[in-house]
Amino acid sequence: MNSETKITVALDGTGGDNVDAKSVASAVRFALVLYPNIKIKVYGSQKLKVALAFEKVDSSRYEFIDAPECIPQDEDPRAVLEGYRTSAMRRVIEAVKDKEADVAVSSGGTGPLVSLSRHILGTIGGLRPALCAKLPAGPSKYSLMLDLGANASSNAKDLHDFAILGQTAYQCFYNVSKPRVCVLNVGSERNKGSALVKEARDLIEQDHSLNCYGFVEADKLFTDDADVIVTDGFTGNVALKAAEGVASAFLNAQGMKKFFSKLARPEWLQPWQYNGSVLLGVDGLVIKSHASAGKEAVAVALVEAAKTAQLNLVETIKKQVQ
Amino acid sequence: MNSETKITVALDGTGGDNVDAKSVASAVRFALVLYPNIKIKVYGSQKLKVALAFEKVDSSRYEFIDAPECIPQDEDPRAVLEGYRTSAMRRVIEAVKDKEADVAVSSGGTGPLVSLSRHILGTIGGLRPALCAKLPAGPSKYSLMLDLGANASSNAKDLHDFAILGQTAYQCFYNVSKPRVCVLNVGSERNKGSALVKEARDLIEQDHSLNCYGFVEADKLFTDDADVIVTDGFTGNVALKAAEGVASAFLNAQGMKKFFSKLARPEWLQPWQYNGSVLLGVDGLVIKSHASAGKEAVAVALVEAAKTAQLNLVETIKKQVQ
Repeated sequence: MNSETKITVALDGTGGDNVDAKSVASAVRFALVLYPNIKIKVYGSQKLKVALAFEKVDSSRYEFIDAPECIPQDEDPRAVLEGYRTSAMRRVIEAVKDKEADVAVSSGGTGPLVSLSRHILGTIGGLRPALCAKLPAGPSKYSLMLDLGANASSNAKDLHDFAILGQTAYQCFYNVSKPRVCVLNVGSERNKGSALVKEARDLIEQDHSLNCYGFVEADKLFTDDADVIVTDGFTGNVALKAAEGVASAFLNAQGMKKFFSKLARPEWLQPWQYNGSVLLGVDGLVIKSHASAGKEAVAVALVEAAKTAQLNLVETIKKQVQ
Repeated sequence: MNSETKITVALDGTGGDNVDAKSVASAVRFALVLYPNIKIKVYGSQKLKVALAFEKVDSSRYEFIDAPECIPQDEDPRAVLEGYRTSAMRRVIEAVKDKEADVAVSSGGTGPLVSLSRHILGTIGGLRPALCAKLPAGPSKYSLMLDLGANASSNAKDLHDFAILGQTAYQCFYNVSKPRVCVLNVGSERNKGSALVKEARDLIEQDHSLNCYGFVEADKLFTDDADVIVTDGFTGNVALKAAEGVASAFLNAQGMKKFFSKLARPEWLQPWQYNGSVLLGVDGLVIKSHASAGKEAVAVALVEAAKTAQLNLVETIKKQVQ
C-alpha cells in the first residue's frame, strides 16, 4: 500500500475507563481531520450516534453501526468467548477478519481484547501474540517494547517469539534491517537476573536471524539503548505504568509547577502515554488504545492505527515465519 | 534508643559504580555535619584515607580502617562467600555482627551484599530477606516497597514474608499500627495478574496480623494508594528503575528545559533516588546505597542509616516473628 491508500478503521466505541460518547465522537472528528485518507466504522450505542451528529462529524467519512453491548474490563475469558456475540469489541475484530476494515481499535479490557483477537483472527505460525508499544527514546527515536500484558505469564520460548515479532515490527515501522534486540533485566551482566531472562537471552542469541544485544535495564527504556525490548507481559506492564506514574507526578503538579513542568517536558517524551499498543502475532491488525491516558488517547490511537495499517505488518510477519 | 543515642555507622568505601575516594570523603564530611551524633568507621583504600585528610574531616568523628579489597559487582556468590576475607564489604557486615557498629552501609553489588549479610548475620525466624526502599508518596508521605532485588525469583510464601517485614518496618518508621499492605500487580481486580501475585494476595489476606489492601498498579507507586508495596525482586527492581528512567529524562533535559524541570519537580518527589534500601530480614542492620544515584547518594544513605539505626528495627522484627 502507499500513503494514498484508503484505510478503514473499525472503532469500538464502548470500552475504556474514561471513554464517554462525547469524547469518542470528538476523537473521531479529530482523527478524520488529521488523516484525510481514513474512514471510520464506529461501533457503539445510540448515545454515541447522537454525539457524532452533535459534533458535526462529516457523515461521508464515517459509518455508525449500532452495537451497544460492552464487555466488562475483567470479564472471565470463557464468558468473553461464549457470550457477547453482538458486542462492539467482537464486531470490530470480526470486521478485520471479514476484510471490512483494515484495523480494529478498542480501549476495552486487555484480557477480552486479546482473547477475542486470538480466537477470531487466529495466531501466525504458532507465535505467542504480544502487545507492543512504541516508547520515545530521544528526538525522533523510538523503541518497541513487548509484551505489555497480553499474557499473564511467559516462558523463554514466548520471549523468543516476542523478539521475532518485535524485530519484524521494527523493520516495518523504521526500515532498519537488524534492530538491536534486548531482554529487559535487573542488570546488564550475563549472570544477572531470573532464570527466565537468562534462558530467553540464550534462545535469542542462538537465533541468527536476530541481532541480540544482551540485557537492558529499565532505567534505559527511554534512552535509545535498545530498539526492541523483550519482556514478559507482567514485567512490561509494571515497567510502563511505573514510568507513567512518575510522569504524572511531574505533570499533575499544581499551580506554577504545572506550568514549569509543561515547559520542562522534553518534546520527544510527549506522545508515549497516548500511542496505542499493537497486538502482534494475530492474523489481523488490532490496536489497544490506552484507556486511562484520557480523551486524546482514542484520537491518537486512531491515527496510529491508520498509519500502521499502511505498513503491511501482518503480511510481513507471515512471510517472516514461513 | 532515643535521638541522643550515639550511632556508629560502618561504611564500605570501596564499592559502587560512581564512587571514588574524593566523593566518599565528602559524603562522610557531609553526613557528620548533618548528624551530630554519628561516628563513622570508614573501610577503604589508602587513597580514601588521604582523601579524608584532604577534605579536613574531623578526625575525632571517624575511624579509618585499611581495607582496600573490593568485591566486583557481579562476582559469583560462592566466590563472594569463600574469598574476599578482608574486603571492605565483608568487614562492615562483620562490624555489625560483632556490635562494633550499629549499621553497615555499602554501595557495592546487591548480590554480594545480600549473600554476605545472610551468611554473616543470619536470617530472622526463617523469613526471606528483602531489600526495602522508601518511596515518596506525596508531601511528607512515604510508601515502603520490597523486594527490590535481594532475590532473583520469589514464591508466594516469600511475598508473604515481605509483607510481614514491610509492615514491621512501616510501624517502626512511621508509627502506624496497621499500614495498608498491597501486592504490586498489573490490575487492581482480584482476577488480574500472575499466579504468583494471586496466591500471595490470598496468603496475605489469610494472615490476620496484616492489613491486606489488595492489589496496586505501578502507576500508583507515588500516589499514597498503599503503605507497603510487596513484589518480587525482579519486578520491584524493574519498576523502580523505569521510574528513575523517566525522572532522568525530565531532569537531564538541556538548556532552559533543565531550569524549568528543576522548578517543576515536586519537592516531595526529590529524595527517592538517593535514599538507600534497607535489607530487612537479616539479624543486623545493612543499608544498600544506590550507587548510580551519584555523589549525594552515599551521604544520604549514611544519614538514613543513622536514622534507621535508632529505630530498633531488627529487634522489633525479631519480636514480631517469635
